[in-house]
Amino acid sequence: MPFDYIPPLLHPSQSKIVLLVLDGLGGLPLNAGGLTELEAAHTPIMDRLAVEGTLGQVTPIRAGITPGSGPAHLALFGYDPIHYEIGRGVLESVGVGLQVKSGDVAARGNFCTLDKNGNISDRRAGRISTEEALPLVDKIAKVSIPGVNTEVRHVKEYRFAVVMRGDGLDPDIDDTDPQRTGVPPLKPEARTSAAVHTADLFNKWLDEARAALSNEAKANGMTLRGFSSDPKLPTFKDSYGLNAAAISVYPMYKGVASLVGMQVIQFPGETPEDEFSALAEVWDEYDFFFIHIKKTDSKGEDGDFDGKAKVIEGVDNALPRVLDLNPDVLIITGDHSTPAKLRTHSWHPVPFLLWAPHTARPDKQTQFGEQACARGGLGDFPSMNTLPLALAHANRIDKFGA
Amino acid sequence: MPFDYIPPLLHPSQSKIVLLVLDGLGGLPLNAGGLTELEAAHTPIMDRLAVEGTLGQVTPIRAGITPGSGPAHLALFGYDPIHYEIGRGVLESVGVGLQVKSGDVAARGNFCTLDKNGNISDRRAGRISTEEALPLVDKIAKVSIPGVNTEVRHVKEYRFAVVMRGDGLDPDIDDTDPQRTGVPPLKPEARTSAAVHTADLFNKWLDEARAALSNEAKANGMTLRGFSSDPKLPTFKDSYGLNAAAISVYPMYKGVASLVGMQVIQFPGETPEDEFSALAEVWDEYDFFFIHIKKTDSKGEDGDFDGKAKVIEGVDNALPRVLDLNPDVLIITGDHSTPAKLRTHSWHPVPFLLWAPHTARPDKQTQFGEQACARGGLGDFPSMNTLPLALAHANRIDKFGA
Repeated sequence: MPFDYIPPLLHPSQSKIVLLVLDGLGGLPLNAGGLTELEAAHTPIMDRLAVEGTLGQVTPIRAGITPGSGPAHLALFGYDPIHYEIGRGVLESVGVGLQVKSGDVAARGNFCTLDKNGNISDRRAGRISTEEALPLVDKIAKVSIPGVNTEVRHVKEYRFAVVMRGDGLDPDIDDTDPQRTGVPPLKPEARTSAAVHTADLFNKWLDEARAALSNEAKANGMTLRGFSSDPKLPTFKDSYGLNAAAISVYPMYKGVASLVGMQVIQFPGETPEDEFSALAEVWDEYDFFFIHIKKTDSKGEDGDFDGKAKVIEGVDNALPRVLDLNPDVLIITGDHSTPAKLRTHSWHPVPFLLWAPHTARPDKQTQFGEQACARGGLGDFPSMNTLPLALAHANRIDKFGA
Repeated sequence: MPFDYIPPLLHPSQSKIVLLVLDGLGGLPLNAGGLTELEAAHTPIMDRLAVEGTLGQVTPIRAGITPGSGPAHLALFGYDPIHYEIGRGVLESVGVGLQVKSGDVAARGNFCTLDKNGNISDRRAGRISTEEALPLVDKIAKVSIPGVNTEVRHVKEYRFAVVMRGDGLDPDIDDTDPQRTGVPPLKPEARTSAAVHTADLFNKWLDEARAALSNEAKANGMTLRGFSSDPKLPTFKDSYGLNAAAISVYPMYKGVASLVGMQVIQFPGETPEDEFSALAEVWDEYDFFFIHIKKTDSKGEDGDFDGKAKVIEGVDNALPRVLDLNPDVLIITGDHSTPAKLRTHSWHPVPFLLWAPHTARPDKQTQFGEQACARGGLGDFPSMNTLPLALAHANRIDKFGA
């Protein structure tokens, strides 16, 4: 349980909480004395919410630590990613929309090139393109091992994910990538006796999958890494008493949300407007809504400062659709920073806006931006405090003690 | 390991980090509405760095806790002093330049006065002066016990430190100071069977040392406290992947730095200019440089507000020597506060300046001082976060998770 003192204090409520996550929201000025992407963006709605609400800045994992997307979202959901680990195989699988349930075993796969002696000559199969890889994934997806079900999905270029489902499976298996060339791929080795059967099944699967690729020039072999199972995270229902829904375009974020028990909402389209329309559709059915906007991060990773600012402006422009639903609590933040200047995730704190019409304490800040957030009334705090703050402002937690 | 999630994320880098510690930097205004020592000092260079970098304020140990110098530096180095304890004997010994290596046992000593029955009549030997004590230290330094080596060094007035070196030594021994007069000093008593041999050796050493002082009027006896050994702290290399150098005029700080595996640099002189010249000399050989300025603390303890401000101005004036080396990260802070108004260490947060030309997020603060730091973009944080932040801005940590 992320906060074991919270469940005994929860009481039923009709209140609605919206957590709007702009992926990689935090930024940096391109030049000394300049503005960040968020500061440069024209965001009249967010600025009004900043006036009415309270600002702060959050540290996703720990000081100085640049988060991956999985841990960053776990932190926002209140689960300390240092303690709650999602296996790499599971993360890769849910990232492409494969479900990993209790008892399933997931792994990340790489296509590789084997020479005529069966030794690896290229660990990434010449970095084959997605177009080249897709038909190969179709081939190995057809491999069938008696007693279990396997599902394979392409990830990107030479990477894929595989999930095995059946009785008595155990993920405690070593990687098969020897991390060097000139040697054959390793066999899946069980680390414990409980995993011997599963290692054997993956061994069989690898043999048949390799046979299916024997005529390929570049991708005639494969390695598997990060064998892992459902991390059995406490659910939002158990942790916070919330019926939670996730609205996201990208499978990765739907996947992490589903691991904490959120209902993933299917909807057409992919713009912020589409996501907010989906929100309106299911508004009456849930208490908590996680909405994920991907493109702030994508533009940041592209080094596209103006593009990132434009994505933020697009979200701002569509925000009245959310406000029209009269949420009791609206939080706008990011999972981490992705400054366009750095073209990658970074460790910098993330701007945080809490809007709650009846209970937010104003802090004289008038613009949603990094500098204002650094002086905001909520101060600096870990991303992990987001849910407790949301529950409090949604009037869902009783007094602690008499 | 101070941050067990950091070593797996480290990658090699050529970047250089400078941690400039002005001992006791934090201050207080002498009068309501006034400025602190740092705010009153004319520091054009630090103020420019404040504009370009990010400010914050750090709490050395925990809220409200006034740190000693040892714990305060451990905290700055990332080692929580609540968990990582340096024994008092070791701290006193390294404080006067005695090395305490693995297997050595160190203790703090007090001269005391014994009456004709061998009972303590004064636990501090009439607080004899350093001049009176020095020849007595010479006498007991000559005491030799078969099978071990002992080294004795004077600390201050009636205080000295002793280190015993040899095979099979164990520090688990009770203090010999009975904490009252009218009784004889206690014998060193082993707390465990492993320490019986060591207690016996210290007993013999005390007998001979007492004999060497039998003709003294005031300091004719002694007590030993704080038996301890090398705390075996994880090194900077293991914890942070850093080849670290320490530049300090005072033995105490060299000692603490050496306990975390820093190389202590020998150099002539004792001014900030001398220390910065030493930095330039060894610049190519290390990744991380801890530079310690003592006199801010000394002037604070003297109650000399203007003197402390002048020391700060002297450091500011010499800072271009550091900047000319083009560090990737420069942090200027203190180990704790020593307000001249209080004439002693205090628990107040300490001003913190992070300068990193490519990655520091600006925060509209334009002066390095307590009030600006309290509104700085880094917010309030524990001193222990200094190293993770430095590593992040020096591009030495990979992403956590995918």
